[in-house]
Amino acid sequence: MSTKLSTIFNSLRSQQLPALVGLLEHGGRFAEEEGIKDEELLELRLTDDMHPLRWQVQTVLELILRSAARVSEAELPSLELTEASFDDIIVRAKAVSETLDDYDFNRMDANADKEFEIPIGPDAKLTLTGQDYVLKFFLPNFYFHLTTTYALLRQQGVPIGKLQYMGPVV
Amino acid sequence: MSTKLSTIFNSLRSQQLPALVGLLEHGGRFAEEEGIKDEELLELRLTDDMHPLRWQVQTVLELILRSAARVSEAELPSLELTEASFDDIIVRAKAVSETLDDYDFNRMDANADKEFEIPIGPDAKLTLTGQDYVLKFFLPNFYFHLTTTYALLRQQGVPIGKLQYMGPVV
Repeated sequence: MSTKLSTIFNSLRSQQLPALVGLLEHGGRFAEEEGIKDEELLELRLTDDMHPLRWQVQTVLELILRSAARVSEAELPSLELTEASFDDIIVRAKAVSETLDDYDFNRMDANADKEFEIPIGPDAKLTLTGQDYVLKFFLPNFYFHLTTTYALLRQQGVPIGKLQYMGPVV
Repeated sequence: MSTKLSTIFNSLRSQQLPALVGLLEHGGRFAEEEGIKDEELLELRLTDDMHPLRWQVQTVLELILRSAARVSEAELPSLELTEASFDDIIVRAKAVSETLDDYDFNRMDANADKEFEIPIGPDAKLTLTGQDYVLKFFLPNFYFHLTTTYALLRQQGVPIGKLQYMGPVV
């Protein structure tokens, strides 16, 4: 047996999206207990010239949704990422998880060899097969922003550990 | 076409291991330019109760090597991770990349459905198929420690960006 692209997305949906929701729940509780406004915590950055926590989380969600849409040749959703509280981002995360159901995962799997043009900036494009897009572009980015989310919360003192990052492995 | 497990490992070897080496080269140059000892930079942590940079890098290397060995049913290598300089860790990274050649990737691919017992602590084991082990345990951990490596260097002021994290996509 070899691995279908849909298996990769389904695995992230059942493990990493719940992990993300768990991290955000911890973040929200921490903000409440410490008397910090959500907005303030969500503006934290690892360095001044990196994006804030809010953007890191939203990018995890945008990446999985738009990548799944792209490889299954659905219309690319344009997300209005305006959430300013942990609760609102959790609602968004659950909505993204449900929206993934709308995509044609059989078509996604049939597109592993198909070439896609991926915009990687205002003027640049990358041509990658569906498989390479998932392995070489989507996954490194997805995990980058998920781990950065974890690092920001952890560095702030939110009581989370590797188990919360890993999510429900089985 | 669907994705072989060996394709996932080969993709990490050709993209993320060179990315890691690039990050370490930047780290080494930065240490030299700033007059910081490698040992000092390699002891940095995101929080007091997280592992230091040195350990994060070594764990990326240990994970890919031991995971590839496990799924291809080779003897699990026991790494002596004693490096104390960027140059030495780069040597180790290149050696790990070469060692991956020794494993039987056909056997790895045939083991996607085989069940493996994965120790996840002194007393606990997780039973996962080869595929689930790679998708649900190895990849999240691999990218966690790679991204944490990036975050530590970036936070210290090492001049790296997302391109350096991504490595050679094509």
